[in-house]
Amino acid sequence: MNFSHWRRGTASEARSQGKRTQQAILARALKIAAREGLAALTIGRLARELEMSKSGLFAHFHSKEALELATVEKAKELFQNAVLRPAQASAEGVERLWILCDLWLLHIERRVFSGAYFFSGALFEYADRPGPVSKAIKNAAQEWLKALREAVGDAQEQKQLRRVRRAEQIASELNGRLLGAYCAYLLEDGASFREVRDALLGRVGELATNVIPVSAFESPACWRKYLEKRP
Amino acid sequence: MNFSHWRRGTASEARSQGKRTQQAILARALKIAAREGLAALTIGRLARELEMSKSGLFAHFHSKEALELATVEKAKELFQNAVLRPAQASAEGVERLWILCDLWLLHIERRVFSGAYFFSGALFEYADRPGPVSKAIKNAAQEWLKALREAVGDAQEQKQLRRVRRAEQIASELNGRLLGAYCAYLLEDGASFREVRDALLGRVGELATNVIPVSAFESPACWRKYLEKRP
Repeated sequence: MNFSHWRRGTASEARSQGKRTQQAILARALKIAAREGLAALTIGRLARELEMSKSGLFAHFHSKEALELATVEKAKELFQNAVLRPAQASAEGVERLWILCDLWLLHIERRVFSGAYFFSGALFEYADRPGPVSKAIKNAAQEWLKALREAVGDAQEQKQLRRVRRAEQIASELNGRLLGAYCAYLLEDGASFREVRDALLGRVGELATNVIPVSAFESPACWRKYLEKRP
Repeated sequence: MNFSHWRRGTASEARSQGKRTQQAILARALKIAAREGLAALTIGRLARELEMSKSGLFAHFHSKEALELATVEKAKELFQNAVLRPAQASAEGVERLWILCDLWLLHIERRVFSGAYFFSGALFEYADRPGPVSKAIKNAAQEWLKALREAVGDAQEQKQLRRVRRAEQIASELNGRLLGAYCAYLLEDGASFREVRDALLGRVGELATNVIPVSAFESPACWRKYLEKRP
């Protein structure tokens, strides 16, 4: 008898079982870190919560650092899927810029992460530290800022936004407004998300040229109407 | 013989010696937490770094939570002394609003903390968690936002700023711009502090009425000149 086919079957089953376990570990790791920070993520705690042995966990992640890195990558993937990728489908310029801001706010409202740690808290916590975890966190934050900056740059290129300041500075301002709104939300000392969106779109309108009618920036509903009716 | 005076002497010496040790512990705790977050702060690590016994440390801080709380209070005190207290000496309204923003940026430039954790990282990390440490961190962030909000409110009251939006919203926007500039600085992807100050003061100018001449908002130097020449 030839068992080679059957043996291949079990090997691939074992691999996919291993992958499922790894995904389950990462999902739990992400839940802990998003709420309490990467430092709260210990092999011991994960083993307890997942009812696994520590050695079983170590078989998947050979070190605390490897686990942290995989968790950051998972968080990055979630953020890309919630914010960056959907925005890539839109037209370059102000349209994409607004979708980026809108989806960023939406990922908070919809609690894509179970806490406020990724990537704001993580960045402030890790920015001044050496090592690959800090690098991965900065990389995620840079990817986001780059998307904003390119959208602003494209909008300036297309003469939709005035060149009052460099694209980096405008991107940094808009990123800051989003962070400020998040802070105020966490402290219950700010505006509703509706007010935040109105103010943010209004600000984009202040920076805009007359290529787009002023009325388009009055509210997100006006903006949607403008996009629909646009030739 | 009466030893009561002598006994009082040694008791008070022991107390002040105890206080000095406690301050040394807190200074080291703050250094660790400001750079790596509160979770990195363990009794074991502190004992190693200070070459003290764990039991010696426990005599000063009876639990990890007590140590965390004392560290947050120490950080809060540093922030108050660097930003909030000096601003209180200035006139209410736009003058105080600008000093608050200016000192906030200065406390980053001068590295009042050894890392970026207090209070931005700490807020995002702890906001969603229960317990007294989270409460103390939120309290510190709220104190800062309140100072900004009151300065905006006073400026609106004095008709120096237009009532385009509620004071909370303007405070949240300015706080956000500061955070955004800090992020960009950490990622080396933003403007210089000089450019940040120019842009921020310019924004305050956009929100201002004609009670203060437009030229005063051109740069921090123009602002200083305006304050000197003001009747």
